[in-house]
Amino acid sequence: MPIKVGIVGYGTIGKRVADAVAMQKDMKLVGVTAHSYSFNTEVAKQKGYKIFTIGETDLKLNGINPDGGISNLLDEADIIVDATPKDTGRDNIEKLYKPKKMKAIVQGGEKHKTTGISFVAQCNYDEAINKDYVRIVSCNTTGLCRTLHAIDKAYGVQSVHATMIRRGADPGDIHHGPINAIVPVLEMPSHHGPDVQTVLHNVEIFTTALSVPSTLMHIHTVIADLKKRADVDDVVQVFKNAARVRVVRNAEHLRSTAEIIEFARDLGRLRGDMPEICVWQEAIGVTSNSHNKLLYMQAIHQESNVVPENVDCIRAMMGFKDAQKSIEMTNEVFGIK
Amino acid sequence: MPIKVGIVGYGTIGKRVADAVAMQKDMKLVGVTAHSYSFNTEVAKQKGYKIFTIGETDLKLNGINPDGGISNLLDEADIIVDATPKDTGRDNIEKLYKPKKMKAIVQGGEKHKTTGISFVAQCNYDEAINKDYVRIVSCNTTGLCRTLHAIDKAYGVQSVHATMIRRGADPGDIHHGPINAIVPVLEMPSHHGPDVQTVLHNVEIFTTALSVPSTLMHIHTVIADLKKRADVDDVVQVFKNAARVRVVRNAEHLRSTAEIIEFARDLGRLRGDMPEICVWQEAIGVTSNSHNKLLYMQAIHQESNVVPENVDCIRAMMGFKDAQKSIEMTNEVFGIK
Amino acid sequence: MPIKVGIVGYGTIGKRVADAVAMQKDMKLVGVTAHSYSFNTEVAKQKGYKIFTIGETDLKLNGINPDGGISNLLDEADIIVDATPKDTGRDNIEKLYKPKKMKAIVQGGEKHKTTGISFVAQCNYDEAINKDYVRIVSCNTTGLCRTLHAIDKAYGVQSVHATMIRRGADPGDIHHGPINAIVPVLEMPSHHGPDVQTVLHNVEIFTTALSVPSTLMHIHTVIADLKKRADVDDVVQVFKNAARVRVVRNAEHLRSTAEIIEFARDLGRLRGDMPEICVWQEAIGVTSNSHNKLLYMQAIHQESNVVPENVDCIRAMMGFKDAQKSIEMTNEVFGIK
Amino acid sequence: MPIKVGIVGYGTIGKRVADAVAMQKDMKLVGVTAHSYSFNTEVAKQKGYKIFTIGETDLKLNGINPDGGISNLLDEADIIVDATPKDTGRDNIEKLYKPKKMKAIVQGGEKHKTTGISFVAQCNYDEAINKDYVRIVSCNTTGLCRTLHAIDKAYGVQSVHATMIRRGADPGDIHHGPINAIVPVLEMPSHHGPDVQTVLHNVEIFTTALSVPSTLMHIHTVIADLKKRADVDDVVQVFKNAARVRVVRNAEHLRSTAEIIEFARDLGRLRGDMPEICVWQEAIGVTSNSHNKLLYMQAIHQESNVVPENVDCIRAMMGFKDAQKSIEMTNEVFGIK
Repeated sequence: MPIKVGIVGYGTIGKRVADAVAMQKDMKLVGVTAHSYSFNTEVAKQKGYKIFTIGETDLKLNGINPDGGISNLLDEADIIVDATPKDTGRDNIEKLYKPKKMKAIVQGGEKHKTTGISFVAQCNYDEAINKDYVRIVSCNTTGLCRTLHAIDKAYGVQSVHATMIRRGADPGDIHHGPINAIVPVLEMPSHHGPDVQTVLHNVEIFTTALSVPSTLMHIHTVIADLKKRADVDDVVQVFKNAARVRVVRNAEHLRSTAEIIEFARDLGRLRGDMPEICVWQEAIGVTSNSHNKLLYMQAIHQESNVVPENVDCIRAMMGFKDAQKSIEMTNEVFGIK
Repeated sequence: MPIKVGIVGYGTIGKRVADAVAMQKDMKLVGVTAHSYSFNTEVAKQKGYKIFTIGETDLKLNGINPDGGISNLLDEADIIVDATPKDTGRDNIEKLYKPKKMKAIVQGGEKHKTTGISFVAQCNYDEAINKDYVRIVSCNTTGLCRTLHAIDKAYGVQSVHATMIRRGADPGDIHHGPINAIVPVLEMPSHHGPDVQTVLHNVEIFTTALSVPSTLMHIHTVIADLKKRADVDDVVQVFKNAARVRVVRNAEHLRSTAEIIEFARDLGRLRGDMPEICVWQEAIGVTSNSHNKLLYMQAIHQESNVVPENVDCIRAMMGFKDAQKSIEMTNEVFGIK
Repeated sequence: MPIKVGIVGYGTIGKRVADAVAMQKDMKLVGVTAHSYSFNTEVAKQKGYKIFTIGETDLKLNGINPDGGISNLLDEADIIVDATPKDTGRDNIEKLYKPKKMKAIVQGGEKHKTTGISFVAQCNYDEAINKDYVRIVSCNTTGLCRTLHAIDKAYGVQSVHATMIRRGADPGDIHHGPINAIVPVLEMPSHHGPDVQTVLHNVEIFTTALSVPSTLMHIHTVIADLKKRADVDDVVQVFKNAARVRVVRNAEHLRSTAEIIEFARDLGRLRGDMPEICVWQEAIGVTSNSHNKLLYMQAIHQESNVVPENVDCIRAMMGFKDAQKSIEMTNEVFGIK
Repeated sequence: MPIKVGIVGYGTIGKRVADAVAMQKDMKLVGVTAHSYSFNTEVAKQKGYKIFTIGETDLKLNGINPDGGISNLLDEADIIVDATPKDTGRDNIEKLYKPKKMKAIVQGGEKHKTTGISFVAQCNYDEAINKDYVRIVSCNTTGLCRTLHAIDKAYGVQSVHATMIRRGADPGDIHHGPINAIVPVLEMPSHHGPDVQTVLHNVEIFTTALSVPSTLMHIHTVIADLKKRADVDDVVQVFKNAARVRVVRNAEHLRSTAEIIEFARDLGRLRGDMPEICVWQEAIGVTSNSHNKLLYMQAIHQESNVVPENVDCIRAMMGFKDAQKSIEMTNEVFGIK
């Protein structure tokens, strides 16, 4: 009996989780929500997804017959993935899901305290097992957790500093800039460090962040003080063995976020997505005086990297106990090795 | 017996033609060329394509065993699609293909006189039937021909002016700018007008062009003086009935090149490609004093729109006589309705 | 006795008009307004401009002692240049200026009917003489009027089509995009054509427009059907003789908006501004079959090109009758020859 | 008797040094070089600078009469500022300046060993006194040296990590990208760290770097382990007291590189330059567990920040011994307080 999943919020994350759920053998997509007509809705219809409305909509005016309202979606689903904008997920838990005793996942725009559990599959899958409300952390936090978790297991992490060079807006967003500026986040350190600690509870980390006029991916520069000496070749292996981490190479002409996305497109990935964190092999270094300071650079596909986490989290919350098995099942659908 | 096709030049166009050929029922991809190692080569290998080397390469050093040299590719193929950089296609005809009496298609970087025949499937398929050397015109020329051909058939075109706002570089190209400038083409009119006339022999057209800091698509603003009065609703129908033209709408939130590409990604198109010329319904207008002046705006996906033309041209050159049937066979593989 | 000028709205246009007024021998800058603290206010203070507050402000908290409220500014001034955001100028006329019987200039964000007179110095200076309320047209309209007026005088203009490739946001604006898209204006024709007619009453013109990810200047592609045959060399002279039009050349490596702004910076222009409309000599063309169709491309510095118009308009409204003399006085301060 | 200065290489740095030299009371600009005609040459002519040719030029064809060849410039000058592209400065020392026993300054594109002395005025002015060949370090190195020198004097620096987010191309450069990508420097650590040590000999520093699609400024994120506890308010004072460092504030709406350049334009700086290193007050932080780890972010105007260094270096090499006095004389001309 497949897990029946409803998607509330059909934007950048929601539409990807919908597609991913629809492809899982142990899940069934009940449907997705729409609050106004757009190409999003047209595509959902073409894919045969049921569409449930939130409030008054212009769907009928535009020739789309909805399959019901959001309450119908809640009635049919076992669990909801809520991918609505910041704060709406929190409100939906209180107003929609708790009254119906629905399990629900919210995204990284919400605060940790909203659910008390923040999730990255390979780090703390067990914390989510059989829980009712879990938060998938943001793309940046997910990216830091995946690689730092692997490094922490291998060498022990004393403390970390990461600088996040963030894309200014997503590719389909024509409204936000900057067009020609670098915009620092003027809090020091930034809020991302504490967010990592909601998953990796014992890692000391501080972060700084900036936005730049690009749409494709974030890049993180990470410096970690380790408890044990590290060797570059070993670190490469640690990353190769980590789940949802891909080691990319200058030698393959993967020298930028643009070429990584070109690679994902060539691979035939749906939407040209690259859910794996991409670490540059040539940018892994250890400082020469001591081998305890590790440097690396990684690229984060902000549109897609949390999508596999949502899928795994569904399984954990519905009682599936084998994290490794879930990760493998999820990865297969994404073409992740 | 399928047509055996070899691809010389495995870049933006070549890799797309390779994938398209591999999916045609009446064709067989013999293989592709490589002159140096990169993620391109890795993907070709993963897809199971045979790789033939041009000159000395570093493939073996990087763990890729080539399947022969370019002369082996020529020996095995019935026809070559040459997608090498400007002027190389012309040289290859003289040095490689004519000596072996190989049929070959070259791209829009070459001059019309190189082949004497310039091709857009729905406009002049018949001109290419059984020919040995044919040129697929550039993305901009292809885009103009598709819509102007339809308008010319319906209303008769007296004369046309088009302004082409071109993307500065392709998405995977990190070397070329501009980063923050608008760069006019300082020839007046630009060379694109005469290029349209190599396909639409009787259309009077002059063009102006500029480059801008975007990577996704070109946009054309077109003004056509017609021989007959036109009505906006009829023009919409003309475009809807034209091959490889898609009418997009502001009402669907398809308001920019970015949203069109987002739409293509959502549709599950390979690489997020949009080979159809996208005409905005809300930007079709006729001047109020006379209804003989038609205005419209269209978006051109420079990476992919000539790919179906290459496939159709293969068929024509190999003697397949039914243009309409070829277009349908090709379109099916791309998901074009 | 100098004309006492007050500036309401100290943003992109307002701060430039303030500087320009302060440099005119026959004018006196009374002061400028501020509604909140920023580097703008700091600079105004450093320049010794009086600062008048609009509503509650945080100026004192930040160490700036205002010189009064906006009503004090109105009391001291003979005329106001209102450079507030769209619709605010219209409201200010009704609420602030008419009750005090103050003369006021508003900007191109307001509608023509707000004042009944729309102004470009070299086209219709006389219409503004001794008037109480006049609108300076937008940067795009000003740019089209300057060159079309010259062409109309020389050859007679039958009809015009212009495509405007607009910068997405101003250089100091980090909030607006697009970062990587071309965004068409989905009205056909765009509203800019009728706006030109508020100044050049007899020119038939239709326009199309797009936005691109650049901050520096707009570019216009213009095609004009003329009543008389034109010759490229003569047209160059017509533009060289026109006020506030500069003929720039590829031969000088002025090939883009970026290089024009670099040129303005090198010239020592305040803020690197280029208030002249820049027409590319190499992009002036006449169609070969008839010499009655003229094509040209021009770059428009949206931040500064209407600033000299504001200065001239002040003089006209205060009763100074010699348009040519006013233009020369204004130009001298800007370093325009 | 003023110091007679010749400028070889009249590009981004050369033209700025020429203007700065021309404004110094104790210096005389002999002239500048040109190797081909462009708006650069036109501006030099308008400013009344003598123009000396390198090799065959097209100056006369374009109406510019050169004042001699480069050897005439060398004959008339006491010292040369060479601002030619990378490696040309090194070659010029050997081929042009040493044979004539000319003193010369080269720029940061050259290697340290070319001159054996690398210069930042406030750090090591004395090393350049009476020397014949000195290198001004690059914009990034200059920026790091200015702030780290101040911090080192105040607290003692144990070790430093800096991430440099670099502009992809200068504002007037339309050829280089990236348009939409983040491009990491795939060496770890980058070469900038050792370059800082050519000036600050005892500071342990490693650096990482990336390029982004912006033209205005670089931003550095700096983390320094200090020998003494630091307090944020004290650090602000240290930066305020440091030469050619400006503390900027979010509170003034100086939140990005774009707004800093807007500020410089508003201040009336020539070309809108900002030669001071801009440190954000709100981005200065010390880690909470120990106060020995200092974080800060700074913006670097790559076009202009080394220009004052060139002026000071001229004085030092010509025997002027008072560093502080030289810095003040230079700053006055730039409007730096």
